[in-house]
Amino acid sequence: MFQTFEVTALPEQGPPRLAALRAELGSEGLDGFLVPRADAHQGEYVAPRDARLAWLTGFTGSAGFCAALRHMAGVFVDGRYRTQVKAQVARDFTPVNWPETDLAEWLAGQLPDGGRVGFDPWLHTVAQIDKAAAGLAGTGIELVRCANLVDRIWPDQPAPPLAPARAHPLEFAGEAAAEKCARLAADLRGAGHRAAVLSQPDSIMWLLNLRGSDIAHNPVAHGFAVLHDDGTVALFMEAAKLDGLDGHLGAAVTRHDPSAFLAFLGTLPGPVRIDRQSVPQIVADRLGESAAFGDDPCALPKARKNGAEIAGAAAAHLRDGAAMVELLAWLDAQPPGSVSETQVVTRLEAERRRDNALRDISFETIAGTGPNGAVIHYRVTETTDSVLEDGHLLVLDSGGQYLDGTTDITRTIAIGTPGDEERAAFTRVLQGMIAMSRLRWPNGLAGRDIEAVGRVPLWLAGQDFNHGLGHGVGAYLSVHEGPQRLSRLSHVPLEPGMILSNEPGYYREGAFGIRIENLLVAQEARPLPGGDAERAMMDWRTLTFVPIDRRLIVADLLTAAERDWLNAYHRDVADLIGPRVGKPAQIWLDAATMPI
Amino acid sequence: MFQTFEVTALPEQGPPRLAALRAELGSEGLDGFLVPRADAHQGEYVAPRDARLAWLTGFTGSAGFCAALRHMAGVFVDGRYRTQVKAQVARDFTPVNWPETDLAEWLAGQLPDGGRVGFDPWLHTVAQIDKAAAGLAGTGIELVRCANLVDRIWPDQPAPPLAPARAHPLEFAGEAAAEKCARLAADLRGAGHRAAVLSQPDSIMWLLNLRGSDIAHNPVAHGFAVLHDDGTVALFMEAAKLDGLDGHLGAAVTRHDPSAFLAFLGTLPGPVRIDRQSVPQIVADRLGESAAFGDDPCALPKARKNGAEIAGAAAAHLRDGAAMVELLAWLDAQPPGSVSETQVVTRLEAERRRDNALRDISFETIAGTGPNGAVIHYRVTETTDSVLEDGHLLVLDSGGQYLDGTTDITRTIAIGTPGDEERAAFTRVLQGMIAMSRLRWPNGLAGRDIEAVGRVPLWLAGQDFNHGLGHGVGAYLSVHEGPQRLSRLSHVPLEPGMILSNEPGYYREGAFGIRIENLLVAQEARPLPGGDAERAMMDWRTLTFVPIDRRLIVADLLTAAERDWLNAYHRDVADLIGPRVGKPAQIWLDAATMPI
Repeated sequence: MFQTFEVTALPEQGPPRLAALRAELGSEGLDGFLVPRADAHQGEYVAPRDARLAWLTGFTGSAGFCAALRHMAGVFVDGRYRTQVKAQVARDFTPVNWPETDLAEWLAGQLPDGGRVGFDPWLHTVAQIDKAAAGLAGTGIELVRCANLVDRIWPDQPAPPLAPARAHPLEFAGEAAAEKCARLAADLRGAGHRAAVLSQPDSIMWLLNLRGSDIAHNPVAHGFAVLHDDGTVALFMEAAKLDGLDGHLGAAVTRHDPSAFLAFLGTLPGPVRIDRQSVPQIVADRLGESAAFGDDPCALPKARKNGAEIAGAAAAHLRDGAAMVELLAWLDAQPPGSVSETQVVTRLEAERRRDNALRDISFETIAGTGPNGAVIHYRVTETTDSVLEDGHLLVLDSGGQYLDGTTDITRTIAIGTPGDEERAAFTRVLQGMIAMSRLRWPNGLAGRDIEAVGRVPLWLAGQDFNHGLGHGVGAYLSVHEGPQRLSRLSHVPLEPGMILSNEPGYYREGAFGIRIENLLVAQEARPLPGGDAERAMMDWRTLTFVPIDRRLIVADLLTAAERDWLNAYHRDVADLIGPRVGKPAQIWLDAATMPI
Repeated sequence: MFQTFEVTALPEQGPPRLAALRAELGSEGLDGFLVPRADAHQGEYVAPRDARLAWLTGFTGSAGFCAALRHMAGVFVDGRYRTQVKAQVARDFTPVNWPETDLAEWLAGQLPDGGRVGFDPWLHTVAQIDKAAAGLAGTGIELVRCANLVDRIWPDQPAPPLAPARAHPLEFAGEAAAEKCARLAADLRGAGHRAAVLSQPDSIMWLLNLRGSDIAHNPVAHGFAVLHDDGTVALFMEAAKLDGLDGHLGAAVTRHDPSAFLAFLGTLPGPVRIDRQSVPQIVADRLGESAAFGDDPCALPKARKNGAEIAGAAAAHLRDGAAMVELLAWLDAQPPGSVSETQVVTRLEAERRRDNALRDISFETIAGTGPNGAVIHYRVTETTDSVLEDGHLLVLDSGGQYLDGTTDITRTIAIGTPGDEERAAFTRVLQGMIAMSRLRWPNGLAGRDIEAVGRVPLWLAGQDFNHGLGHGVGAYLSVHEGPQRLSRLSHVPLEPGMILSNEPGYYREGAFGIRIENLLVAQEARPLPGGDAERAMMDWRTLTFVPIDRRLIVADLLTAAERDWLNAYHRDVADLIGPRVGKPAQIWLDAATMPI
């Protein structure tokens, strides 16, 4: 199993660890120390060694940080984790609503003029430190670079991961690493930059056509790289990870031990591009005047999937869709009250593993039944595991990592007989999901320009949901990939080849949750007869093919166009997935995809 | 008549004037001079004295500027005016696509290192000069403050307007000027500002409950003002305009001749707030270190209409709607081929004037029939005047200035028998207009977050239109009022009381145009049964009540919800406007508002 159900939050371990950290503060002459969730690579997942926030506080969310002062320890978490943090941390820790409460403001309220707050310059980005320092200007409180004090008090801290990296075949990557390097080097020259520092693992993996296994669910190997404006690359990664890759990497990629990284930065002639949003502060420190701010040069090229990547994603989705259909067919045969959330998760992973193509799950499956479905980032554990009861909705959000692509799908399933309110809300969520799937829009628009389209049906009923409509997805890389997003916060124009999720939802706390998610690829739209001749437009190609639960749809609420979309989609599901599943699932699928 | 149809562009007058200007360049040792459309107040309309761009070049659009160099004279105009400029300027002038072509870049391409370009620091905002100066950095080209060279060569330049200002009754303003000043002064103190400079006429009119007649269609008096953080105001306006207003203005508003303005700025202790987007460069020059950048303090409070202003707007719209219905009833009785655009404009103004409440039209009526309807800012003249022929669509966009409110309405009317393509496009425009009218959205969203809702029906057909969905509207003030907008460019959250237009359109060049426009007031939405209890939402109240041409609607394309909205709207139109029109118009109205 890639997924476990153990309870990882142990609130009682926090207080003695906090006391040990405070002793270090004293000996360092500091008034506080910042402990972020992030590692030096700012990914969504961290290796066990880097799970400092969870080790210190018990809080296991994927974002946030602790500001540990001598008299108080604030645990800053965002809206997704307000409930979870209370259950996971001891009373010695104070949950803080973030970003509503700004770190600098909070520190200024807690510390006197002259206060000194330490931070590990590997674990905070330039943008984070700039923002905090700007907020502290005039308060007399100082941010101080220092060694990592948690590492010092963590006796059995795990070692850094050393999993071997692998070459990612050209058949799936679609473009040789040398070509990518040459293309990006030309961009650097165009911008007048001599080099760019890469610190995000998925950027490095994409650029060099590598994949790794340093962390769970995300096929990356940790390291740093410098791309020079002549297309050569200096790669800072443990030699043990790169065993046997000499031929793949070639002479243009020089290999170095990570310990040489900082010294190497000091030798670079500027300007050297760094991305303020992702590069550690220590990189900017070392580059000094040579640093030039700009976007990670891999970010947009990686987001625009090429033909091979799109074909791979489509193939992966058919394979993944077959596993989902097997699971759903089985689940429908179980009477209400007979199956638990962990059983669903376990069986779904088994279905995905069946043909040996699964490399990992792309994130821990969310299987929340009844009230658990309303917890947007629910993780089922031995303690929370609940039985699927009659009248429940089951929110099942999961995905796989395959060599040819990354999947992410959510379906909401009626257990027994669903209630009227649930069906009405489900129908509205579906209407939003259909509206985005059907959309066609003028070239140049960003996620923020069109996101509302997926929310309007809920808005008209006085409802909404507290997350973005969709996120970018990588090609056998991160299931959450920037910069493309279907979100009010995203001003990055959508471009052909970008893969995004379309996942409206609805959550009634303590009662039920709903989410429906397909992945889509943005593409140039074919001109329509009668359409504006000179107006280039885009639309979506759907990647995900799995039935949407017809028992939850109030057909009378759908417009004719919505009904047509749904019936055509289900016809495609039957055609594409039918031949890939066993006989019982085929029979189930035929019924599940009947026109409404 | 408030509107005339004379041809104001006289291309042949441009060349000798340009020659005279170039002679001045020589004697001043300059290589160029910038001639903007704007006056010192940056409003949409200018007084005849300030129509320097039109006088010099012949171009009469409402935005743009001329960069007159010794060997070339670029006329910078935006997308709305690409066709118009070619017809209006002589060949000595070179139209430049703006903002695609940046002024600084263009200058750098035309002038050598050491080039000196003069500008009148009264006529350019701080933001404009900052941007141009930043773009010229490193080119060796210099921007030089100088006297206005056009004024020097314009022998019969009109005098500045001196129309008397009037007190705007509390009954319509809804809040005493002293209260507004106290409220805004508290905001200034909160921001740590000692004073704010006001240069936008509608800000000053709103703050002091004044209205004026210095320019056409916009009931403002030109002047400058300084609001102090104790709520007192220094008003710089010709005494002749303020005759009899001593009692209204009171002791807290000191009056000064405009000639004293600059010297007064030099005496102000800082920080003094100025809005970079609207305040002339000369104000920032004079304030020097005392200047602090910030929004015009009147902008948002003015945009949030109070109860009296909303009630006034509603009353004005019923009065205005009756005039429109009389016009439409008359027009429908005329056979195709018998009426011209200017006749429509003339008769509409007569209908609006009938009950003596009309103070002005709120802009020059756009009456474009057939292909003229595709010109978004069409102004009918004696030369372009066209007859309404069978099969034409007439785009009729007009508004009135009344003491109690400002109106702006567009209807598209079928002349004779409309074509199928026209009807299909009209129906899609209507669907977008209905979608926005029916919308409900979570508090805190801005125009850019919801604008797409009004475009989706066109997008799905491969169509779109090249203007924003809507603009803010003042309360017996500017018909185009910021900062609220229904536009991808507007990040200002929508707030209760903001009045906006909702005006999707469709334009096929050389063939036909369509636009449907109602004004809406944003308001707190009443909670819906089943809606999220804790989620505050907003919706619209419609102000405009005039039938939408049923002959142009393809009923089969409408959803049930769209049809319900339309029929309910028409029922309201019949109920509210029926009692206000004569018998023939009543009979017409009954038919025009029948359910579909």
